[in-house]
Amino acid sequence: MSEPTSLFFLDDLRLGQRFRSGSLPVEAEEIRTFARAYDPQPFHLDEVAAQSSLFGGLAASGWHTAALTMRLLVEGGAPLAGGLIGAGCELTWPKPTRPGDILTVDSEVVEIRPSRSRPDRGMVTLRSETRNQHGDIVQTLTAKLVVPRRPS
Amino acid sequence: MSEPTSLFFLDDLRLGQRFRSGSLPVEAEEIRTFARAYDPQPFHLDEVAAQSSLFGGLAASGWHTAALTMRLLVEGGAPLAGGLIGAGCELTWPKPTRPGDILTVDSEVVEIRPSRSRPDRGMVTLRSETRNQHGDIVQTLTAKLVVPRRPS
Repeated sequence: MSEPTSLFFLDDLRLGQRFRSGSLPVEAEEIRTFARAYDPQPFHLDEVAAQSSLFGGLAASGWHTAALTMRLLVEGGAPLAGGLIGAGCELTWPKPTRPGDILTVDSEVVEIRPSRSRPDRGMVTLRSETRNQHGDIVQTLTAKLVVPRRPS
Repeated sequence: MSEPTSLFFLDDLRLGQRFRSGSLPVEAEEIRTFARAYDPQPFHLDEVAAQSSLFGGLAASGWHTAALTMRLLVEGGAPLAGGLIGAGCELTWPKPTRPGDILTVDSEVVEIRPSRSRPDRGMVTLRSETRNQHGDIVQTLTAKLVVPRRPS
């Protein structure tokens, strides 16, 4: 679904509907570059320092995994009309993203709630699992998204 | 507390303990650069397109606000021994981060739970509010962090 032919309005979605993203490789240099800018901790910056950390080797910042997941969702992984605008979310990082990983995101619509005060939109809860090439889940994201109604 | 003289082990923390970060300015070019890499949607990339969006003007990706908050926490906003290693979190974005904003993070320890299976560590829940220079909250983050016990 990396090039969706149509975008889904609130009225087009149903509970249990699923989307799959394209995939994205993650290299060590990108892990370090992100960490230098936003999460400068030794286990995200340096292979040797990471060996003796809780991670036992270079690991991407969880925020980097979240950012890469967002890119996969925006580039076709969640083809929602109006774009992906989140009011809030819950995240878990069961395993770290490692250099050489290739990430893919599977998403499922778990709640659809039309707005009472704004008849032109509603809130959709999307649960997204980000997996590496081995099928390990590196992130779960449960996000509340603002989705427009289909214009009448 | 941007240059803490000591780091806090699990044993040193108490409920209600507070930390304040340094501050960080956010410019339009950084908002666009982050968005191009991780959240390429019109309202994060282009002033004119953003005017007619839900945001009514250029807005940082929520993931960018999260990443900037992490940098402020790592650079002294949450002086925890062992670094900041999150197992998961909840996020809300009550208002967008805008070009020219200056962000600061205030954090509070809201739960301290020693591990039953791993006597060398525990889990701390830290609630962090990220504010702009007007005092508006642009993000709340409630994160579960792994914190080591003080070595005996």
